[in-house]
Amino acid sequence: MRIAFIIYEGITALDFIGAYDPLTRLKSMGFLKDLKWDICSYTRKVKDNTGLVFMPTKVNKSLKSYDMVVLPGGFGSRKLAKNKGFIRWLKTAEDCKFKVSVCTGALLLGAAGFLKGRKATTHPGAFKELKGFCSKVVNKRIVDEGDVITARGVTSSIDLGLYLCEKLAGREAKLKIRKQMDYQHFLK
Amino acid sequence: MRIAFIIYEGITALDFIGAYDPLTRLKSMGFLKDLKWDICSYTRKVKDNTGLVFMPTKVNKSLKSYDMVVLPGGFGSRKLAKNKGFIRWLKTAEDCKFKVSVCTGALLLGAAGFLKGRKATTHPGAFKELKGFCSKVVNKRIVDEGDVITARGVTSSIDLGLYLCEKLAGREAKLKIRKQMDYQHFLK
Repeated sequence: MRIAFIIYEGITALDFIGAYDPLTRLKSMGFLKDLKWDICSYTRKVKDNTGLVFMPTKVNKSLKSYDMVVLPGGFGSRKLAKNKGFIRWLKTAEDCKFKVSVCTGALLLGAAGFLKGRKATTHPGAFKELKGFCSKVVNKRIVDEGDVITARGVTSSIDLGLYLCEKLAGREAKLKIRKQMDYQHFLK
Repeated sequence: MRIAFIIYEGITALDFIGAYDPLTRLKSMGFLKDLKWDICSYTRKVKDNTGLVFMPTKVNKSLKSYDMVVLPGGFGSRKLAKNKGFIRWLKTAEDCKFKVSVCTGALLLGAAGFLKGRKATTHPGAFKELKGFCSKVVNKRIVDEGDVITARGVTSSIDLGLYLCEKLAGREAKLKIRKQMDYQHFLK
């Protein structure tokens, strides 16, 4: 199992880290010992929307070989959705088994054509923008369409990450990770 | 209002980012226009416990002039609590109005002597270690002792960040930030 965490200029750091934390615990807590991941970007320079610098481990490399790509949201997503070079790069993820997004990351999945005929969600403030990209905008925390899984606003990144932990490694793994993250008093 | 977000080798990224997101929204959403912050570390090289690189904006500079220092937790905290150079540096935060921690960041506040005579909390897995540093370990999500505020495990970083938003800018600011973070369906 190989995961590509996509980062870009203007991401919301919590969209990224909220999913990154539980997913990487699949390895550190011993549930998926062969799990590998990269921090992938199209450009070398990557800052979040506050100026915080993130360092990619792969720059402008094909996403084809990953099992999962994770797209965080952020103010930069709206601009990037119109960036032909970025979208061409993102399209290399077309055959990945799981294409997932948090918040306005869904607009990027949409711009790459991955939401065609699929239901999806995003930050409530971007529901209108998402409409043109998918079959139906759904106001749920997580919308799972099999190969495409989208989550709502910023903090849904944690719920998405835990949801994917269960999908990849089973319910017991998710429950243990959730407890270690001190999140057990929230969701079922 | 100036905040120092402390980062160090072996932090848990979500401990940091979970508080960073709501606190920095105090500025981006217009509630505290004069809010400033730095990403402060003792050493130049900073990776989280998975290898993710973070770039400090200030390296080994006195923390004296900040109103608030925020200490995230992470596996690196146990080693750092015994690092005399780091603790000497952290002690420059002694006169800061607010010294706050997430998860095992409390062990660092403790090692610097900031928890003497104070109640505190940390990740449940570190309650025993915290005992020697404070007057009482409290099993609550957030423990506010005025100048020292500690939060429990990893995801409590978000609750702490929102709690501090209310403390610094009032309840309305917190509620609007929480909504923008899509976190409104959880806490009061």
